[in-house]
Amino acid sequence: MSLNLKTHLQHFTNPLYLESGRILEPYDIVYETYGHLNQDKSNVIVICHALTGSHHAAGKYSNETKTGWWDGLIGSDKAIDTNKYFVICTNVIGSCFGSSGPMSNAYASQLPYRYSFPVVSIKDMVKAQRILFDRLDIYQVEAIIGGSMGGMQALEFAVSYPGFAKKIIPIATTYATAPWAIAFNKVAREAILADPEFKNGNYDAKVIQKNGLKGMAIGRMAGHISFLSHNSMNQKFGREYKKDDSLFELFGKFQVESYLEYNGDNFSKWFDPLSYLYITKAINIYDLARGFDSLEDALKNITAKLYLISFKNDMLFPSCEMYKIYEILNNRDYKKHTFLEIQSNYGHDAFLVEIDKFENYIKEVLQ
Amino acid sequence: MSLNLKTHLQHFTNPLYLESGRILEPYDIVYETYGHLNQDKSNVIVICHALTGSHHAAGKYSNETKTGWWDGLIGSDKAIDTNKYFVICTNVIGSCFGSSGPMSNAYASQLPYRYSFPVVSIKDMVKAQRILFDRLDIYQVEAIIGGSMGGMQALEFAVSYPGFAKKIIPIATTYATAPWAIAFNKVAREAILADPEFKNGNYDAKVIQKNGLKGMAIGRMAGHISFLSHNSMNQKFGREYKKDDSLFELFGKFQVESYLEYNGDNFSKWFDPLSYLYITKAINIYDLARGFDSLEDALKNITAKLYLISFKNDMLFPSCEMYKIYEILNNRDYKKHTFLEIQSNYGHDAFLVEIDKFENYIKEVLQ
Repeated sequence: MSLNLKTHLQHFTNPLYLESGRILEPYDIVYETYGHLNQDKSNVIVICHALTGSHHAAGKYSNETKTGWWDGLIGSDKAIDTNKYFVICTNVIGSCFGSSGPMSNAYASQLPYRYSFPVVSIKDMVKAQRILFDRLDIYQVEAIIGGSMGGMQALEFAVSYPGFAKKIIPIATTYATAPWAIAFNKVAREAILADPEFKNGNYDAKVIQKNGLKGMAIGRMAGHISFLSHNSMNQKFGREYKKDDSLFELFGKFQVESYLEYNGDNFSKWFDPLSYLYITKAINIYDLARGFDSLEDALKNITAKLYLISFKNDMLFPSCEMYKIYEILNNRDYKKHTFLEIQSNYGHDAFLVEIDKFENYIKEVLQ
Repeated sequence: MSLNLKTHLQHFTNPLYLESGRILEPYDIVYETYGHLNQDKSNVIVICHALTGSHHAAGKYSNETKTGWWDGLIGSDKAIDTNKYFVICTNVIGSCFGSSGPMSNAYASQLPYRYSFPVVSIKDMVKAQRILFDRLDIYQVEAIIGGSMGGMQALEFAVSYPGFAKKIIPIATTYATAPWAIAFNKVAREAILADPEFKNGNYDAKVIQKNGLKGMAIGRMAGHISFLSHNSMNQKFGREYKKDDSLFELFGKFQVESYLEYNGDNFSKWFDPLSYLYITKAINIYDLARGFDSLEDALKNITAKLYLISFKNDMLFPSCEMYKIYEILNNRDYKKHTFLEIQSNYGHDAFLVEIDKFENYIKEVLQ
């Protein structure tokens, strides 16, 4: 059977009431679906994307050379089997791939919001998705799966909408963003703000899409460090020096430097800098316990079964942070939930690049 | 007895032949001394400074509010006891505190070298110090001690000038800079280069000393991440938010963000950006094994006794890298050398801020 890849745009005229007290109105949500919704709408799986991800999680459009970011996991006979499940992946609000974000036009002015876009939280991103599912008459889903910021959404779904999902699979994520991760975001945010081409948010998006934004490239380099690990860098690059560069030339490069530069520069052409500021803000202020007395208190809400997956050597969201969630849940509901720590040298990026290490596990969980 | 703090400037007219094949000529070395040289010059201890350190390791001049960077360790009755030892700390070439560096005047033009300054290596820094000691008629020293890049110098002394020091105490360092550390330097270097005020190296030093250089501030923020650890950041900052800042304000700040900003901005007023490029280059290309068949082969040169000190949770130069040195040495000279891993959550910066955890050990080693 085919993947049945489809892109959809849903426009909402009702206000979205945000955690900040502010309102987003009207707003759009773009999402992709794979597979076929069954008659009683009981075969839905929700995929949540990470900071720079999009709703394009699987498959490939005719004009594309690369597939969606979790194509290895989603498809016919794959771990998330589109022969069986109807899979939905939504672009989060605040992002730059079609859902409302800082570069969307504000209704009143018909000009991009830029800094007038309200700060959104992970809870807000999840709320917007929940409203979308309501619109689609989907009131319960089989599972919600996401890595990194996608995992934050999965956990927020579990706490904010108990009963909505039967199974929650948060991968390579945490219960509240630690200062270590906030610090990496800080470097990226400051580098964007310092770039004169950013023009205090008043940049020409077309110019940036063409030339990139050096400040965001630099910020992304910092991000890439946090996505890898000592070991993965040793294995991937070692101390290899760029061919033809002289070791004693001030700007001669190690391979790891070329890698960071290449990925940083590229990234800054396809991701919007204001979205980067807004989404890193959402990640920084993410805290499952906000509005509760404690994390324990927040987790009491959960009725779904949680399958937590972490990676050893994840430098961004260390395994122990996910274990803390498990510990609390397991103290209450003994043996109901599971925690899997995957041996990996790769670091945080493992949730994207080492799918082979957890696809079978997800397959089992979904069977 | 007093510290007997003195600053000296030594001018050299002979060329310094660099590892690159290039020449530095003439050149200056500024250094500080503490204590008193005994008659047979047998009581010398050499201190080597880190990336942004200087020769001012201890004591305080009348116009200063802060003491030298290792004042806790060096002084009368301290671990490095100036009643007994004559202590020398040299500003490395390439730096910006008085020894020849990229902002020194080139002899021919009487203008700052800037990019025409040759790339120097750790080996070159050590060679320049060795020449200085020759000039001072010091041909053997009791010990060489340094942390981070200072530890690289200590190790390079041990390999390049066997017999010069009886004891070598390298702290929080490595045998060759790993890609993880090179990657952090990359972010800093790119941020400096991207700052329009850097003017491709043609900045006005006085303007930068007054206003700072945002690009270097951002780079330093990345550096500070590498100097700390998850745990130390959790303990130091947690998720504390800046008083009076709103959580839902796009530029509201967590305490960790304020810390990085404050230290980054400050730093960029007292350290020279070209020196930062040159010294990070020296660190990046540092490899004890260069010119040898292998690290094992390089370490065969060593005749001194090594006392290696590392810190658990050092994210920049992980403990295991220092252990590798120990392992090789211990395989050859069983039980001659020692390796001490200090329990610490602090991270790399522990060599500067947790002196109380190793001062007694150093005292013992020197007795």
